[in-house]
Amino acid sequence: MARKEKDAGEKVRKWELKTPKGTKDWEGTDMIIRDKIFSTITNVFKKHGAVTIDTPVFELREILAGKYGEDSKLIYDLADQGGEICSLRYDLTVPFARWLAMNSGIQAIKRYHIAKVYRRDQPAMTKGRMREFYQCDFDIAGVYDPMLPDAEILRITSEIFEGLGWKGKYLIKINHRKILDGILEVCGVPTSMLRTISSAVDKLDKSPWEEVRREMTEEKGLEPAVADKVGEYVNFKGGQELLTKLQEDATLSANADAKKGLDDMALLFTYLKTFGILDKVSLDMSLARGLDYYTGVIYEVVTEGSAPPAAGGKTASKNKKPTTNGADEDRSNDPTVGVGSVAAGGRYDELVGMFSGRSQIPCVGISFGVDRIFSITKARMEKEKAAVIRKTEVDVFVMSFGSGLLEERMAITTELWDAGIKAEFSWKVKPKFDKQFKQAEQGGIPFTVILGEDELAQGKLKIKELGLPAGHPEKDGVMIEKSDLVREVKSRLQTAAQKQEDLENGVANLAVQA
Amino acid sequence: MARKEKDAGEKVRKWELKTPKGTKDWEGTDMIIRDKIFSTITNVFKKHGAVTIDTPVFELREILAGKYGEDSKLIYDLADQGGEICSLRYDLTVPFARWLAMNSGIQAIKRYHIAKVYRRDQPAMTKGRMREFYQCDFDIAGVYDPMLPDAEILRITSEIFEGLGWKGKYLIKINHRKILDGILEVCGVPTSMLRTISSAVDKLDKSPWEEVRREMTEEKGLEPAVADKVGEYVNFKGGQELLTKLQEDATLSANADAKKGLDDMALLFTYLKTFGILDKVSLDMSLARGLDYYTGVIYEVVTEGSAPPAAGGKTASKNKKPTTNGADEDRSNDPTVGVGSVAAGGRYDELVGMFSGRSQIPCVGISFGVDRIFSITKARMEKEKAAVIRKTEVDVFVMSFGSGLLEERMAITTELWDAGIKAEFSWKVKPKFDKQFKQAEQGGIPFTVILGEDELAQGKLKIKELGLPAGHPEKDGVMIEKSDLVREVKSRLQTAAQKQEDLENGVANLAVQA
Repeated sequence: MARKEKDAGEKVRKWELKTPKGTKDWEGTDMIIRDKIFSTITNVFKKHGAVTIDTPVFELREILAGKYGEDSKLIYDLADQGGEICSLRYDLTVPFARWLAMNSGIQAIKRYHIAKVYRRDQPAMTKGRMREFYQCDFDIAGVYDPMLPDAEILRITSEIFEGLGWKGKYLIKINHRKILDGILEVCGVPTSMLRTISSAVDKLDKSPWEEVRREMTEEKGLEPAVADKVGEYVNFKGGQELLTKLQEDATLSANADAKKGLDDMALLFTYLKTFGILDKVSLDMSLARGLDYYTGVIYEVVTEGSAPPAAGGKTASKNKKPTTNGADEDRSNDPTVGVGSVAAGGRYDELVGMFSGRSQIPCVGISFGVDRIFSITKARMEKEKAAVIRKTEVDVFVMSFGSGLLEERMAITTELWDAGIKAEFSWKVKPKFDKQFKQAEQGGIPFTVILGEDELAQGKLKIKELGLPAGHPEKDGVMIEKSDLVREVKSRLQTAAQKQEDLENGVANLAVQA
Repeated sequence: MARKEKDAGEKVRKWELKTPKGTKDWEGTDMIIRDKIFSTITNVFKKHGAVTIDTPVFELREILAGKYGEDSKLIYDLADQGGEICSLRYDLTVPFARWLAMNSGIQAIKRYHIAKVYRRDQPAMTKGRMREFYQCDFDIAGVYDPMLPDAEILRITSEIFEGLGWKGKYLIKINHRKILDGILEVCGVPTSMLRTISSAVDKLDKSPWEEVRREMTEEKGLEPAVADKVGEYVNFKGGQELLTKLQEDATLSANADAKKGLDDMALLFTYLKTFGILDKVSLDMSLARGLDYYTGVIYEVVTEGSAPPAAGGKTASKNKKPTTNGADEDRSNDPTVGVGSVAAGGRYDELVGMFSGRSQIPCVGISFGVDRIFSITKARMEKEKAAVIRKTEVDVFVMSFGSGLLEERMAITTELWDAGIKAEFSWKVKPKFDKQFKQAEQGGIPFTVILGEDELAQGKLKIKELGLPAGHPEKDGVMIEKSDLVREVKSRLQTAAQKQEDLENGVANLAVQA
């Protein structure tokens, strides 16, 4: 939408009128959808007792140094204009750890943080990869009995996707760093190669096993026989029955790491069952997560189209869980294909100590990819032609028939405002009736209040709901007493809100059936 | 709160663990107060049909260049890491004008934007002057009949401060650039000196007239007799009667600028009367506003303590408007003294054209100083010991008496979550009763649900509201049927919400009387 330099009347500019590369303005219905996603997520966090903190958009450069490995080259630096050397934040986790380390009085907190982060990456705007983008993090810091905060994070995750209307369309893949390490150990992977082989395993969501095996053996020099043993384990996906199978695996249970991880997982499963979300979760031995700092349970949420279109190979799709690959149907035109996971996280018990000499604060958290969630939600809304998105929240447009009646329109609107009702009127002294009507329609405003000189003289005015079907008894509006205005408007708004709620539930149910 | 380097066990760091100078972390009750202020403001904007847009935190440097005069030195630049040259935004107005110029399809919009802006100024944290701080802007762009959007902005402003509970504690000072220019002209100020004398007038809210007069005559070389004439006019403050007086001033009315400004103001006053806010407004001839780009009505909201402590001279305090100086009482300990205005703005019809060759889009807007509003609100809450601020929104804490009953606590909490109720339980397998109780109390959670083995066996559990007075029939809690839990909790929450609302209204009324 950037204006072209050649536009008539444009003064010559040596530069283009645009936002910086990899950034965008948010506006219109996009902004409304995004805010709705934020409020759905935030409400769930608050339901579970979370508080929010807000940290500066830039940090001292030393705070970020040494936290992101090779990706450090993607950090945006501020210019040295004298004074401190700063950089834009790269994520919300490091600022959270810095904050915990600075505030030694805080030993435990459930905090969420929704804010923009910055990465000088090659942008891929259509895939939702931006240089400025939102992260939405929820973390629990503190010492508690095992797996209880971990289970609650998964419950929160499930509530959020249900709240977004994704019922039946998402799957939480979980694994445990210690189970994975144990598997690699019992398969015969040398200790020195644990991390590099683990990072090869992590690619299984993007590449077929054959390719990952080649990386392990040819690139990283793992014995082919060892790789094949690893391959058997890491293709395991499932629920309680897989866990039982792994627990009964004598070799695996003899490994201390694996044993600890499997015990954790068994406990977690009982908690997930009580929380009513066991069927949302799939134990997935191929899940490894890239970041080094995870120390326990790890998880990733995938949705239709999260996986690449040609992942190949059928995966288990028991219990009506969504499949995580595109083998069953053609998705080549699905705009959501390839967006990757929509949320991910895990337990990281040793990060806070990087900033602080005092005892570690164990943490477990999750980050929601709100830009990806936004893209998917928007695409689905367009496809399902779901409820029309209103441009504003205005409920009533106050208009006049015949003469301008400006003062009367203002007075009536003021009465509505005083009653807390969202209302507008035309900022013209003598607006045409048609133009006022059009303004109400274009704004998607559901109700008009119509003033006429004669009616007002009798103490009356008309309420008209827009978009009523032909034959509806109130199609042409209803004449009411002026003194009843607020009561009449409020009662109609309540009815309309109920109808809208029913409609949305209907759409959600429809989505489940589809 | 930054940890000292000498802390035991601390590894040697060459740098301090802190946020950059002039920035801060927002946390705890501060964050809750701030969010409440944001939502109050946002709700009023939405009530008037506003939409929001979100622009990147940095802009191409050329966009900001030449917009801020001398203050451009305060702009934060990003380092040149290859690629585009960018700077952090300095305000929200220039990005809005850039956005309007880029989106030529948009000829009219009511938009709000709440976001952080950046200035490399000398920070004065205790006065609320930061390098990273929030602005909250509302602007109306588009061609409408005269003074209607201007009047609605003042109505919005009034609704916001009423909504914040500032009833009777704020005053909207207004003036008009053309009235001010006309006054200076009829007093005999040479045309070439209009802006510099106007900017001296602007200092009247910080300095006594004698000092401003000295600047006009000694520093700027204005004839003393002319300065004295200006002095007569600019000390005028008042309402309708002042406007009438100015309109009857034959010399002033003969000046084209003044005539236009006075006509605008007269029309505005009729609109403000219909909107029911004429008594919130004071015409103030000393209001000049620093920025050059204003072209019409200008305004500034002051509150108790906005003015400097020793402003000297009594100002008119008719109609129970708050006085805007501290002459009547000692304010030396008032933390709000010297925070300056809490909102300010005006009409700027020519700014968008700086980016665009196409026809100008007239704009009128206001910016709310949310950091200042925050400081004042917080100080008042502390002084008035208003309603206790809850740390989280959790309504129910589920706890056990006797044995741990972990699974039962989890199941009951899940039932509450499923019903949309905000609930927590202890993440301990066998928590002590006292510790659970303390956790509920410390979190400010109003209700506990208490489980006991014997009671559960009979299908019963106890609801207990915390903080009930001795002798209250439910002081020791009420035993209810387990199957009635959700209904019983919801009904109690509704009653409590009503009580809270009454209390807050009571506090608000108390504040008005004080």
